[in-house]
Amino acid sequence: MSELIGQLTSVALLASLLGLVVAVFFYFRVKGLPEGTETMNMIARYIREGSMTFLVREYKVLAIYSLAVFAFLFFAFQGQGTGLLAGLCFLFGAFLSLFSGFVGMKAATFANVRTCQAAREGSKPNALLTALDGGAVMGLFVAATAILGLGGLYYFYASDPHLATALHSFAVGASSIALFSRIGGGIYTKAADVGSDIAGKVVEGIPEDDPRNPGGIADNVGDNVGDVAGMGADIYESLVAAIVAAMAIALTADPEYILSIFTSGQGANEARSLAVTLPIFLAGVGLLVSIVCIFIARALRQNSPAMVLRAALIVPSVIIGIVSFIIMPMLGVSQAVTYALAAGAIGGAVIGLITEYYTAWQPVARIAESTKTGSGTGIISGLAVGMESTVASLFIVAVVAFIANAVMPEGMGLFGIAMGAVGMLAGTAIVMTVDAYGPISDNAGGISEMSGLGKEVRDITDELDSVGNTTAAIGKGFAIGSATLTVLALFSAFILEVNHVRIEAGLAPLVLKLDEAPILVGLLLGACLPYAVGASTMIAVGKAAQAIIQEIIRQFNEIPGLREGKAEPQGTAIVDIATKAALSQMVLPGCVAILAPVGIGFILGPAALAGMLAGAVAVGASLSLFMANAGGAWDNAKKFIEAGGLEGHPKGSEAHKAAVVGDTVGDPFKDTSGPGVAILIKVMSVVSLLIAPLIATIS
Amino acid sequence: MSELIGQLTSVALLASLLGLVVAVFFYFRVKGLPEGTETMNMIARYIREGSMTFLVREYKVLAIYSLAVFAFLFFAFQGQGTGLLAGLCFLFGAFLSLFSGFVGMKAATFANVRTCQAAREGSKPNALLTALDGGAVMGLFVAATAILGLGGLYYFYASDPHLATALHSFAVGASSIALFSRIGGGIYTKAADVGSDIAGKVVEGIPEDDPRNPGGIADNVGDNVGDVAGMGADIYESLVAAIVAAMAIALTADPEYILSIFTSGQGANEARSLAVTLPIFLAGVGLLVSIVCIFIARALRQNSPAMVLRAALIVPSVIIGIVSFIIMPMLGVSQAVTYALAAGAIGGAVIGLITEYYTAWQPVARIAESTKTGSGTGIISGLAVGMESTVASLFIVAVVAFIANAVMPEGMGLFGIAMGAVGMLAGTAIVMTVDAYGPISDNAGGISEMSGLGKEVRDITDELDSVGNTTAAIGKGFAIGSATLTVLALFSAFILEVNHVRIEAGLAPLVLKLDEAPILVGLLLGACLPYAVGASTMIAVGKAAQAIIQEIIRQFNEIPGLREGKAEPQGTAIVDIATKAALSQMVLPGCVAILAPVGIGFILGPAALAGMLAGAVAVGASLSLFMANAGGAWDNAKKFIEAGGLEGHPKGSEAHKAAVVGDTVGDPFKDTSGPGVAILIKVMSVVSLLIAPLIATIS
Repeated sequence: MSELIGQLTSVALLASLLGLVVAVFFYFRVKGLPEGTETMNMIARYIREGSMTFLVREYKVLAIYSLAVFAFLFFAFQGQGTGLLAGLCFLFGAFLSLFSGFVGMKAATFANVRTCQAAREGSKPNALLTALDGGAVMGLFVAATAILGLGGLYYFYASDPHLATALHSFAVGASSIALFSRIGGGIYTKAADVGSDIAGKVVEGIPEDDPRNPGGIADNVGDNVGDVAGMGADIYESLVAAIVAAMAIALTADPEYILSIFTSGQGANEARSLAVTLPIFLAGVGLLVSIVCIFIARALRQNSPAMVLRAALIVPSVIIGIVSFIIMPMLGVSQAVTYALAAGAIGGAVIGLITEYYTAWQPVARIAESTKTGSGTGIISGLAVGMESTVASLFIVAVVAFIANAVMPEGMGLFGIAMGAVGMLAGTAIVMTVDAYGPISDNAGGISEMSGLGKEVRDITDELDSVGNTTAAIGKGFAIGSATLTVLALFSAFILEVNHVRIEAGLAPLVLKLDEAPILVGLLLGACLPYAVGASTMIAVGKAAQAIIQEIIRQFNEIPGLREGKAEPQGTAIVDIATKAALSQMVLPGCVAILAPVGIGFILGPAALAGMLAGAVAVGASLSLFMANAGGAWDNAKKFIEAGGLEGHPKGSEAHKAAVVGDTVGDPFKDTSGPGVAILIKVMSVVSLLIAPLIATIS
Repeated sequence: MSELIGQLTSVALLASLLGLVVAVFFYFRVKGLPEGTETMNMIARYIREGSMTFLVREYKVLAIYSLAVFAFLFFAFQGQGTGLLAGLCFLFGAFLSLFSGFVGMKAATFANVRTCQAAREGSKPNALLTALDGGAVMGLFVAATAILGLGGLYYFYASDPHLATALHSFAVGASSIALFSRIGGGIYTKAADVGSDIAGKVVEGIPEDDPRNPGGIADNVGDNVGDVAGMGADIYESLVAAIVAAMAIALTADPEYILSIFTSGQGANEARSLAVTLPIFLAGVGLLVSIVCIFIARALRQNSPAMVLRAALIVPSVIIGIVSFIIMPMLGVSQAVTYALAAGAIGGAVIGLITEYYTAWQPVARIAESTKTGSGTGIISGLAVGMESTVASLFIVAVVAFIANAVMPEGMGLFGIAMGAVGMLAGTAIVMTVDAYGPISDNAGGISEMSGLGKEVRDITDELDSVGNTTAAIGKGFAIGSATLTVLALFSAFILEVNHVRIEAGLAPLVLKLDEAPILVGLLLGACLPYAVGASTMIAVGKAAQAIIQEIIRQFNEIPGLREGKAEPQGTAIVDIATKAALSQMVLPGCVAILAPVGIGFILGPAALAGMLAGAVAVGASLSLFMANAGGAWDNAKKFIEAGGLEGHPKGSEAHKAAVVGDTVGDPFKDTSGPGVAILIKVMSVVSLLIAPLIATIS
């Protein structure tokens, strides 16, 4: 490793260590804050225990899965002499994800009750600060461990011929944990939400978060396991995959192409090493910028939370672009890299704003208006809004890909697209902080309601929560947009890797022509898979919600005094049902996602697999945007009516009931199936990249 | 034209003439049947006049559109010396579509009331026969004019170097009429249906088809303009596109590849001519088989309508396979062609059965069950069923493509896929007959209700109608499956044509590599378009339905005695609103579909256009299957509950109301947006194929 490469890698590693230190500081700061009343404490403990129980039981399932994959990789890569390396790196990538999820979620379950307590003391800025600090633990852990893991591997294996296998295995570890956490957490959170909503509101006629509703604890647990742990694993994976995609392309691209992005006269090997180092270095810079921005956001806590958080999502991208503009010439790298990075960063912000428009502004009012004629028309207009937003967002992704390709010299366009993805994700730490802030505030509101703290407290937590809803939607836009770019880059990396291996084996490189039958067959097979995951996750939520509804009805019928508020509901029974359902139902979609590329690759060969990935990305990116945004729009249409936005149709009116139907449909759409489909396409791409050397010679 | 080619073409032309003669015979037979009471007659006349008024006004819009396209083609192809030919063939293809739609719909609006009269006379077989004969006029016209038009062009231009331009222009004419008819008719029919349902049932509390509902006539008109005229134009286009795709591949494939599908020693030119003739010849054979099967189905009218109609959809495919197996050796053609044809025919039947399973059997009961906990869970389970059915259907399409490719010699796989599409569509005449039978029975039921004919009559029309619902779903499965295969073939034909032109111009052929940035950008752009059409059509239905609801409410408030049944509703006012709304709202999605490939092709070049088509077919095929099947399943879940399938939850219960919500959402899904998206991908492919010579040299 040359001195320059060593320095750049060290910057990334030091940034990640700094991130971890700051995260630990926030963890203990939050833990040391006052916890409020006995009742608040008890409820918070139930939520924490429920969340941790889920995580521990999920980790047991994942341990079995990980051992199986370890064994598969160990034997599959034995022929390449990298069996142990592949297996261990896979475990490393998986472990860091689990570890971040564990610590981050623990912090969130400390922060929720303390945010509620700050609100109880009447201080909105303190409540905001507590929720933000709690979220920052997850945000910083996620970004820091991703960079630390990849940076560490790179530091030790930079000159090793098996660097690619190490990186790809690490990414597969990250991806598969993300897949299961996202789907399992998503099923849990929405089954609990839909189940206790329907049972509580419709069947028994009591409001959400009513202390008598036995589903209340499970609903709050769901926010943690789905929106904190699941989302964290997802974002961690996104960052890992984007960096790995860019590194993989730099590792296998033609030497002359690599040289074309340098302005000074590097040697070919030095140039390649520098190109490989850039993504990890820039991600490290992004983390440093994010840390600074988190502190600035904290300092601005006296201002409107909506303004602070929106700025927190967008400003870091701009700064990262500026930093890159300054640094690239110093490294002798063409500014084309900066432009590609900036295209991604700006594109991410634009997608975020588009998502906000469709899930919080005029289209939401349009959905609310349409509920006047019933839930049928409300559903129709929500579906239409979801579709419109898909067109707009995906169009921006296409524009970013177009620009990131166009600014780069010939042959390096796909490296440009990968750098666009890195740019979109450079602010990961702060995006995830703001994302995790949402469920913490939501939990704080739930605890305040269940503890009967009164309207003033609830008003503060409600304001924080409603800002969280909008930022969650923006975060999802970022996540799916960057996932799409990342998948395009991974896809190209896969084909480069296949041909790299073929050439080394003395075979002609594959020319994957779009009009060849195996590719077209693959395209159709790939188009099926997102629907398979969508269907199975929707069904899973429906089934689990039904089981929860039955249990709640049973408790109301069998526990004397529950209806009158004189007896305690058995919340842990619901937690148990949701946990079991989520863990058993996540297996099928998870296995489909992982086995599909392996099966197609080994049976039909790399051409059909490439076609499959192309079909899956086109269908998966659009379907997940559609589901996420339609769901967000329905959710906010309901809130719009509850806030009195629809004159003459207050909360409880027929229009409001119709809007609740939209929200019910939107719940699994936005938090289970939509994210599940988005992660599906990433997992399949990463798995394909890893197995590329094993299937490269099949035809 | 050699003697053999001449004979084969003549078989196709004679088959089409025979089809027309039989159709005219059915037309006059139906027209001569008794029409029933004065009231029935009056209602039928309103429906007929409303339908014809819509068609005439739609045709005026299409006339302007056609002149614009004529002018564009005239000037665009001037450089190739084929401006007039392209323009005239476009008009020819469009005219035949309009003509078939006109005659077929007129027959359907004669048949509806006569079917009702036969039911009034108590004869179920006669009612079935009348509806079937009425549908056969459309079925035979559609298949016969497609074959006559293409066969005629081929007969005169077989040796002309501009044959391809003639065929492609004809296909674009067929496609664009199909697009507008399908979308315009789809918006009309569902706006009228949803609008009068919601206003009648929810706002005013009167049943569907109640004579007091001012939307009743428009609802019945909608069945004709959407499910008869729109569907007819769609199926006509499918057959045209499948034949043209196969012919186009045969016209441009490498001579050695062409020779490889022949067992005897033809010369290269003779072999190519024979390969080009095969699709049109086999479509002609399919028409002959269909005519025979229509007569057999008529003869079996004493049996259960469900059995007769299901057999009518599946048997012809089998016979066509057998006929091909006998004829191919006589022509010196490899049986590989038969196998590809049979794969398509059998695949179509399997997709039909899968569609029937998901829209009529256990999944429907599952949706009905889920309505017990409200419309939210009912919608969720319907969406899940739609997604599952998409996976199953698209998987079969992929298998058919795989087999059709695998059975053919190397290089001819895509010709095999095109022949698979021809096989799937060979029974077009009878499939469309059964399809048009559905709305005729539906109308018969409506007329019986509006004329107050009593329960015995309604029981017969209801049985015929419910069979029609199932066969409509099967027909849609066929249509989308064949569309997907056709688009794959068209797509390859487009690339072949581009390279054919490039080689003639002395340029290197384009190698469209899947991992090149322009193709990936195109892929994302293509993924947007189905959602754009989906959104705009959903919104159009919503808007138009709202306008209809307002008008119905106005009539009930302002017309004295309407509520008590003492005054006549102003049905024509609703017809007028629906007509205007449908015609104005169809323009945007229609123009998107036609301008997108032109814009992308001329601005970004053929590679991006190819990527766009790939993205559009993956997303469009899956999205349209999803929407069509979810819609069908909701519709039947409602009917399942109405028929007493859900114990303890009769018609009028909360569960039934929840099922009605599903049906309302499903209406535009299955009859407007789903078919609109399916036709979008065909139109874009056909337009791309036509403009291929104009953009081939852009890069």
